[in-house]
Amino acid sequence: MRKIINQPEAMVNEMLEGILAAHSSELTCANDDQRCIVKKQLQPGKVGIATGGGSGHLPLFLGYVGEGMLDGCSVGGVFQSPGADQMFEVTKTIEQGAGVLYIYGNYSGDCMNFDMAAEMADMEGIQVEQVIGTDDVASGEKGKEDRRRGVAGIFFVYKTAGACAAAGKSLAEVKAVADKANANTRTMGVALSPCTIPEAGKPTFTIADGGMEIGMGIHGEPGVRKGQLQSADAIVDEMLAPILEDLPYESGDEVAVLMNGLGATPQEELYVMYRRVHEILKERGIHVFHVYVGEFATSMEMAGASISLLKLDEELKLYLARPANTPFFSQVQLG
Amino acid sequence: MRKIINQPEAMVNEMLEGILAAHSSELTCANDDQRCIVKKQLQPGKVGIATGGGSGHLPLFLGYVGEGMLDGCSVGGVFQSPGADQMFEVTKTIEQGAGVLYIYGNYSGDCMNFDMAAEMADMEGIQVEQVIGTDDVASGEKGKEDRRRGVAGIFFVYKTAGACAAAGKSLAEVKAVADKANANTRTMGVALSPCTIPEAGKPTFTIADGGMEIGMGIHGEPGVRKGQLQSADAIVDEMLAPILEDLPYESGDEVAVLMNGLGATPQEELYVMYRRVHEILKERGIHVFHVYVGEFATSMEMAGASISLLKLDEELKLYLARPANTPFFSQVQLG
Repeated sequence: MRKIINQPEAMVNEMLEGILAAHSSELTCANDDQRCIVKKQLQPGKVGIATGGGSGHLPLFLGYVGEGMLDGCSVGGVFQSPGADQMFEVTKTIEQGAGVLYIYGNYSGDCMNFDMAAEMADMEGIQVEQVIGTDDVASGEKGKEDRRRGVAGIFFVYKTAGACAAAGKSLAEVKAVADKANANTRTMGVALSPCTIPEAGKPTFTIADGGMEIGMGIHGEPGVRKGQLQSADAIVDEMLAPILEDLPYESGDEVAVLMNGLGATPQEELYVMYRRVHEILKERGIHVFHVYVGEFATSMEMAGASISLLKLDEELKLYLARPANTPFFSQVQLG
Repeated sequence: MRKIINQPEAMVNEMLEGILAAHSSELTCANDDQRCIVKKQLQPGKVGIATGGGSGHLPLFLGYVGEGMLDGCSVGGVFQSPGADQMFEVTKTIEQGAGVLYIYGNYSGDCMNFDMAAEMADMEGIQVEQVIGTDDVASGEKGKEDRRRGVAGIFFVYKTAGACAAAGKSLAEVKAVADKANANTRTMGVALSPCTIPEAGKPTFTIADGGMEIGMGIHGEPGVRKGQLQSADAIVDEMLAPILEDLPYESGDEVAVLMNGLGATPQEELYVMYRRVHEILKERGIHVFHVYVGEFATSMEMAGASISLLKLDEELKLYLARPANTPFFSQVQLG
């Protein structure tokens, strides 16, 4: 196992200690539990937005807690859901009189625990709504979008809903923006290598050396095709085609693009891939409003990448363009 | 070779096409040469700052061209110096009547070519000064600091000098700030795996599986010790000790910390490392003003990390804290 860690079972807590030490002016924890990360300066009267999920995906999930994005995040073990109790503690802390929106990825453990947390909140009189990220086109057929997993595209949901909440909108309005962003987002991934859960000590799955898997999930869930590693252009063509036809994204549309590295894939390769994405979108008459390139949702040291598109309307564009500032992500006003 | 690229020899140019396509509102190229990257909106009367270096280190070097940082960057092949002609083209383009400062890492090819470019600029009546980054403590003994290589700590030089230039200071003043930032910065790295130059097709050096090399350079230059991979705390102790005693950094000092991933090492591990850095600095009575964690200077898919410290005074703190915004790095006003 090639990791710079101490005891494997201490990894998540030590990572959180490091994060809280590095970003103590911006982040704190609820209920003295460092698995309940909340924004230090909450804004009275604002809709609170909470997320949560397993560790091993930085900057997902807690990395988006900050100005113009999220207010709190419950943190699970590596690839494990946080507990409903932790979600509830975050909920109570970030409730500022306008209700709380949960935004999280479509994984059974997370869904079950967030449902429980919402019930606990309801009993305390806190109004909670939920939006579940389902952007991974590889994980469910068209017409059954609600069965799809949430992956990197949830960044677009956080960004737009976060800006909407920061603008003082109501819980129903923030939920509607989050729903629309999720409905307009599609993602496809490719993995070139597996990753290792520290406590397991060995890779959770295998990819043949010199191979790749198109459509693999961020925990190594099976994709749609295994094969020999192809050229960047061929890989992008194969990833982008199902994204474009699914929504579909069409001539005259305006989109934001997210080129996401899964952990071990350098930015050089993401830009070689983006070159081809840009060509294809231009050919199709699809206008690119903004491109994000970097690591937004990872699987520790997994090599690979994902491509996400968000179809914009005036409202989503307005909120995507607003400034944001978290310890892991910072953006000035766009456009 | 596990890379998402097309023809290996096309990698750098295709990466640059991707970068220019993704960030066309912020970056352009001088003299129609995409290896001469310049900021789109130059500021008349401002000191121009140029850098340059080999490819394969994103966000180094061109990633810091933008608001509050650099004005231009010449781009070489993977791990190769750009040409003096390209440096000169960048110089002519970014000269805005106040002279140009070159800031680059201490590598023989870069030094030779920047010297030539400075002579060419001089013949055209453009005033040029140079500051050479020499932050890597592993690469030269104390007393011979000018023989040391420049690595991730050059980020601090870019950030402070960039903010000083943006504040309208003179070439001499900007050079003085860059000199001071470089003199106050020390870095130490650790590598856990090699990286592969695309055109070579195989790793340029080896690290035994389960091994590490302390003090290795970002092109695989030999470090100070090879051995079995240790715990994160032991690695940090071994990396931080020579940094602290070299300047030295002492009780009462105020520093900025840069925890840099070399490419394949996930942020989770950087934060586990930072936890120990924070403990040690606290024990020593060294105050941390700000912590940067992420990928700032990489070696493509190399696994490993580096730690840099910048000792601050009021002037450096002022400039470090100023906002900056490039396609690869964004910061709001700190503190």
